[in-house]
Amino acid sequence: MGRVIPLEDARDSSQSLKPLLDIVAEDMEAINRIILDKAVSDVEMIPELAHHLIDSGGKRLRPMLALAAAKLCKYQGNGHIRTASAVEFMHTATLLHDDVVDESGTRRGKKTARMIWGNQASVLVGDFLLGQAFKMFVDVGSMTVLRIMSNAAATIAEGEVMQLAAAKNTATTEDAYLEIINAKTAALFASAAESGAALAQRPAEEQAALRSYGKNLGLAFQLVDDALDYSGDSQRLGKSIGDDFREGKITLPLILSFRRGTEDERQFWNRTIAEGDIQDGDLERAIALMKRHKAIEATFERARSYGGIAHDALAIFPASREKDALQQVIAFCIGRTN
Amino acid sequence: MGRVIPLEDARDSSQSLKPLLDIVAEDMEAINRIILDKAVSDVEMIPELAHHLIDSGGKRLRPMLALAAAKLCKYQGNGHIRTASAVEFMHTATLLHDDVVDESGTRRGKKTARMIWGNQASVLVGDFLLGQAFKMFVDVGSMTVLRIMSNAAATIAEGEVMQLAAAKNTATTEDAYLEIINAKTAALFASAAESGAALAQRPAEEQAALRSYGKNLGLAFQLVDDALDYSGDSQRLGKSIGDDFREGKITLPLILSFRRGTEDERQFWNRTIAEGDIQDGDLERAIALMKRHKAIEATFERARSYGGIAHDALAIFPASREKDALQQVIAFCIGRTN
Repeated sequence: MGRVIPLEDARDSSQSLKPLLDIVAEDMEAINRIILDKAVSDVEMIPELAHHLIDSGGKRLRPMLALAAAKLCKYQGNGHIRTASAVEFMHTATLLHDDVVDESGTRRGKKTARMIWGNQASVLVGDFLLGQAFKMFVDVGSMTVLRIMSNAAATIAEGEVMQLAAAKNTATTEDAYLEIINAKTAALFASAAESGAALAQRPAEEQAALRSYGKNLGLAFQLVDDALDYSGDSQRLGKSIGDDFREGKITLPLILSFRRGTEDERQFWNRTIAEGDIQDGDLERAIALMKRHKAIEATFERARSYGGIAHDALAIFPASREKDALQQVIAFCIGRTN
Repeated sequence: MGRVIPLEDARDSSQSLKPLLDIVAEDMEAINRIILDKAVSDVEMIPELAHHLIDSGGKRLRPMLALAAAKLCKYQGNGHIRTASAVEFMHTATLLHDDVVDESGTRRGKKTARMIWGNQASVLVGDFLLGQAFKMFVDVGSMTVLRIMSNAAATIAEGEVMQLAAAKNTATTEDAYLEIINAKTAALFASAAESGAALAQRPAEEQAALRSYGKNLGLAFQLVDDALDYSGDSQRLGKSIGDDFREGKITLPLILSFRRGTEDERQFWNRTIAEGDIQDGDLERAIALMKRHKAIEATFERARSYGGIAHDALAIFPASREKDALQQVIAFCIGRTN
């Protein structure tokens, strides 16, 4: 199942992002301008709310993948800029709706939009950004990119509904969890990376390779996210440890602890997660149980395994600065602490 | 400003829908199959919730417009079926999000989806249906239709945000109100009608004519809707009289009553609408004030005026069964009581 990215690779993870940042720096400036430009509306609330999210310190990983993939495929046009901007809009729209669904109070250490402007505005501005994203894809003019992105939009929403249906269900299997994160997270990573090959009209195998790279990178990214929710540094993470626990969200650390646990422990998970009856000290006990069953460790291990698949997926491309940068990003995603 | 559709035309309004129903009957069966087919998902909640809305007795006016416009333009392919289905999906997605934003309890006399499955599912299934709509537009393969529909998606959302921003604001002008209903309602009517000419690759003036027809029909439709909320037969309407009043929604009957009213009456509107302090008998007083200032009458009058513009917009097309059916629909929209 592909090589496992060794832990050492992931040590100084911020360094692993640098080659990608260097490659896309110029294009990212153009993207920032487009994003501000397309979030404009006579309806005051739209740019206000959009800027709140856009300026809120996201890494813009997904648009960077789209740009680097286009460069890897030696794409000569300028459709990748608009495509990457639209990918970020899709992601932003998802975040807005996610926060409403999860009733989240903070994201990346800042108040969520719904806490400032309300759920209603968050739903509607999310819809607006999704509409703007599709307008931009239409402007790019590639039916292939439109196909990839409309599939992604439906799949992401399907994944979010799956996650909602699985909420509080401690019997969720690892497979079901994988299906959820495949849809809600990996689909957009996959589509962003694939768009580069689609724009450059590269052969099907290169398109598939970039899609596979993006998908497995997305899986690794989400697994790390879910592990950090029980183990991260809340100061650096910008969100509180245990958010998933308090929301009864089913993620791999919990699934593994539940399956590897004793009958008594399962009763604990059912009380806290399924029934939502959380008392003082429960989060600490949850983390202790995860440590005992090496559930966090195993989640990181799974992430490294998917990272390995992502790495191998790019093997068919000849050596290049872009290929190297895309492979180094894997270590960043696995080693990140925020 | 075009001829005003006389009131007599609108008397037996259900008869005015029949020519359109006859023209699209066969295609509508195909659309019903596609709609059920595309609402399928392994995620149980999606088809359940989608069917609830799809089966809930909507008139499917928008897809019928798309079909009839394609036939008017002698379109020979089969892309109009998928286009019309996707238009209905867009509309359904909007309804789901609308009900969340408005906190509505009933729609067409049935419990809203959010009352049964919750706000969270309504937001996410709305997103899924919008994604499916765009997949269908991509399948149709017309970049022009994709452009029309992505513009519509962004405009509708913008209109909804405008409406949210204007909520409870009794100082809203008739112009601002028109801008809102232009975006939130008329844009999809316009796009549905325009898609027919776009698919058939008819000259720009025919595309513009159908767009103008759809837009003005949509304005008339929404104006009547807003008038019925204060004057309709709640049994037949499937919603309670006064919903807009209780939600503090700003519509033309209220705008006109506020502007035409005395200082004392404006205080009444400010208390009930702006401050949301509604007491027993207030709805009755609101309706009485609207009657005194002929605000409902004027709203219907405006609707007839837009209906006249819609009628004239089709003048450039030679006489045909489709043209006749589309013009008769105007009387249906104006004369309807539900």
